[in-house]
Amino acid sequence: MSTRPLVTLTTDFGTGSPYVAQMKGVILSVCREVDLIDITHAIGPQNIREGAFVLADTTPRFPPGTIHVAVVDPGVGTSRRLIYAEIGQQRFVAPDNGLVSFLIHQTPPNRIIALENRDYWLPETSHTFHGRDILAPVAAHLALGVDPGLLGPSLDACVILDAAQPLKSASDVTGEVQYVDSFGNLITNMTREDLSALGDMARLTVECQGRTIHGLIPIYGAAMPGEVVALFDSQGRLEIAVAGGNAARALAATAGAIVRVFGSL
Amino acid sequence: MSTRPLVTLTTDFGTGSPYVAQMKGVILSVCREVDLIDITHAIGPQNIREGAFVLADTTPRFPPGTIHVAVVDPGVGTSRRLIYAEIGQQRFVAPDNGLVSFLIHQTPPNRIIALENRDYWLPETSHTFHGRDILAPVAAHLALGVDPGLLGPSLDACVILDAAQPLKSASDVTGEVQYVDSFGNLITNMTREDLSALGDMARLTVECQGRTIHGLIPIYGAAMPGEVVALFDSQGRLEIAVAGGNAARALAATAGAIVRVFGSL
Amino acid sequence: MSTRPLVTLTTDFGTGSPYVAQMKGVILSVCREVDLIDITHAIGPQNIREGAFVLADTTPRFPPGTIHVAVVDPGVGTSRRLIYAEIGQQRFVAPDNGLVSFLIHQTPPNRIIALENRDYWLPETSHTFHGRDILAPVAAHLALGVDPGLLGPSLDACVILDAAQPLKSASDVTGEVQYVDSFGNLITNMTREDLSALGDMARLTVECQGRTIHGLIPIYGAAMPGEVVALFDSQGRLEIAVAGGNAARALAATAGAIVRVFGSL
Repeated sequence: MSTRPLVTLTTDFGTGSPYVAQMKGVILSVCREVDLIDITHAIGPQNIREGAFVLADTTPRFPPGTIHVAVVDPGVGTSRRLIYAEIGQQRFVAPDNGLVSFLIHQTPPNRIIALENRDYWLPETSHTFHGRDILAPVAAHLALGVDPGLLGPSLDACVILDAAQPLKSASDVTGEVQYVDSFGNLITNMTREDLSALGDMARLTVECQGRTIHGLIPIYGAAMPGEVVALFDSQGRLEIAVAGGNAARALAATAGAIVRVFGSL
Repeated sequence: MSTRPLVTLTTDFGTGSPYVAQMKGVILSVCREVDLIDITHAIGPQNIREGAFVLADTTPRFPPGTIHVAVVDPGVGTSRRLIYAEIGQQRFVAPDNGLVSFLIHQTPPNRIIALENRDYWLPETSHTFHGRDILAPVAAHLALGVDPGLLGPSLDACVILDAAQPLKSASDVTGEVQYVDSFGNLITNMTREDLSALGDMARLTVECQGRTIHGLIPIYGAAMPGEVVALFDSQGRLEIAVAGGNAARALAATAGAIVRVFGSL
Repeated sequence: MSTRPLVTLTTDFGTGSPYVAQMKGVILSVCREVDLIDITHAIGPQNIREGAFVLADTTPRFPPGTIHVAVVDPGVGTSRRLIYAEIGQQRFVAPDNGLVSFLIHQTPPNRIIALENRDYWLPETSHTFHGRDILAPVAAHLALGVDPGLLGPSLDACVILDAAQPLKSASDVTGEVQYVDSFGNLITNMTREDLSALGDMARLTVECQGRTIHGLIPIYGAAMPGEVVALFDSQGRLEIAVAGGNAARALAATAGAIVRVFGSL
């Protein structure tokens, strides 16, 4: 059995939106032998930063050569470009609005191409759904083995969003919530390394939304039910959680909320 | 590699309902070599019209011969029939309650069959879940290559729901909201052709829920954030949207809300 | 074409959570030739009983040999074990917290193994996401054909949760709501057999949350719109529903609500 190409989809269409299935129908009509995987369709509407965060967290887990289609596209129909990008061993088709830029922070792209060759688009394209009319058929042609060089001219660069970098002093580190997961856990932009100069993890103090948390715990199970705790998440980032509860609700926190960590010294 | 049959599922079970997985388990137990695609499980409970709208919008995007299983079935267990229908190049199994009728408005069916042959059902059928007990195994047998003629007797017709047709006069066209998408966009039943007699699109006036919109725009990007706008959607229908927002909430509008368009003459 | 192994996923991550896609990426990176099916990701956070109920209801519908990955894991990172279990013709990898125990109530397990052999885990494991770091790669290795005996030592038993058994007297049966489905239907733990001693089903009286329902109906279609009714669900259990509505909301009922059934004698 020959291996099928793998195509993932990430959008802000909302879970259950039939617009996703329109894209899948288009892909399967061009390339029937493909495996489709949903990453998520629950990116906040037009929230490019959240899309960029999720793509950077998730796509490196996939097999080399996977084709990732990402559609968070408030500029659809304007002069914003659509691009193909190879980053690490993954391949992306997306609007050129920063969606792949958190990946590029980690790994410079091998190749960026502007999707300008209409031969690989649907014959008719709307003004409001380029995910279906351009990105889906382009991804399907890539899955068929089309050389990316045929999709359009090469680009030297694409739109890159700033990553919010934590601010470090001798006594504290200030960062922010990057992402609220479906448990209400607050994922910050501070890693274990960012906090290492502050001393013993068990004696750090974390402040967020007026709450103070004393000491990081190693695992959820070390907390009392309902307790607000801080720990490192599965990617090594500082996370604020409520044991058996929802930290985003308990702290009324969303992406962008400031988090400060003080050393024990 | 031989191509697997493709089966889609559309239900009102709710996103995340394990009832969908029961259907998938039944299908895979009858026909292991099949590709399954979810269209949506977020059709409003018992909302046949919404299901009919989504099927008509989405299924023509799929490869010829795709088998679409649709379950919005308030009459489960009553004397309502279950049918197989070939419409255009797509194949459907569904309750005979109008679910496929918006497709039939566009394209007369090639063939309709009443699902009466119990050889292709689960050995035991419940009174409340024919999607799992009848439609899923029938779809799986079709995927195995069973001749549809074996499923039951041919029918001359099936249940057809009225499409709400826009009302046209010399000076205006009156239609309604057919569907609210996951962005809160209001998709109406009026096409570009329906409005063509009213003159310059940029000078039309659109009224809905007491709001007046002056002129259609070509793309979302032409609007100010928060602005209520009208444009043609990706299928060529008049749509009311809020740039970066949710028109259904802003206008307190649901399916059925009246939309009037006045010409500029 | 040789048949691909089938792997399902059931979690409490929330529909649309990209954590599910991280697991899928890990599985596909170990075993590219696999078919992935979502059972549900909408199990209530940390709600092991709900997960156990859904697994028991859904997984027996799948083809023999299917590998089911279940992650409802409040104890992640503690000393709770992770297990492989063969139950009937299905195979499971899950935390040892009772998730598979409602299946075991029906069918004693053929084999239970503690997942201790790190050769089949990701090289680095976090403290907070064993679903991705241990269960996903173990499932993928099973899909590749790894002998379960290599995963770790055999166990004689695993954690078993009590099933709430209905209480029967000569005149009545008292049970409880086990599960609220996406329609708001209240699925109880009482079967047709449990109620058979109470006499004619059409003349039973059902009490729940202060509401009294006179007589069971055979199908939803026998009710008036908005009527609170009782009937047997598609698995033969007593269910309370509101015709065209939502019984959980109408009765303010959740899992655990008491339901009493009185005979007609």
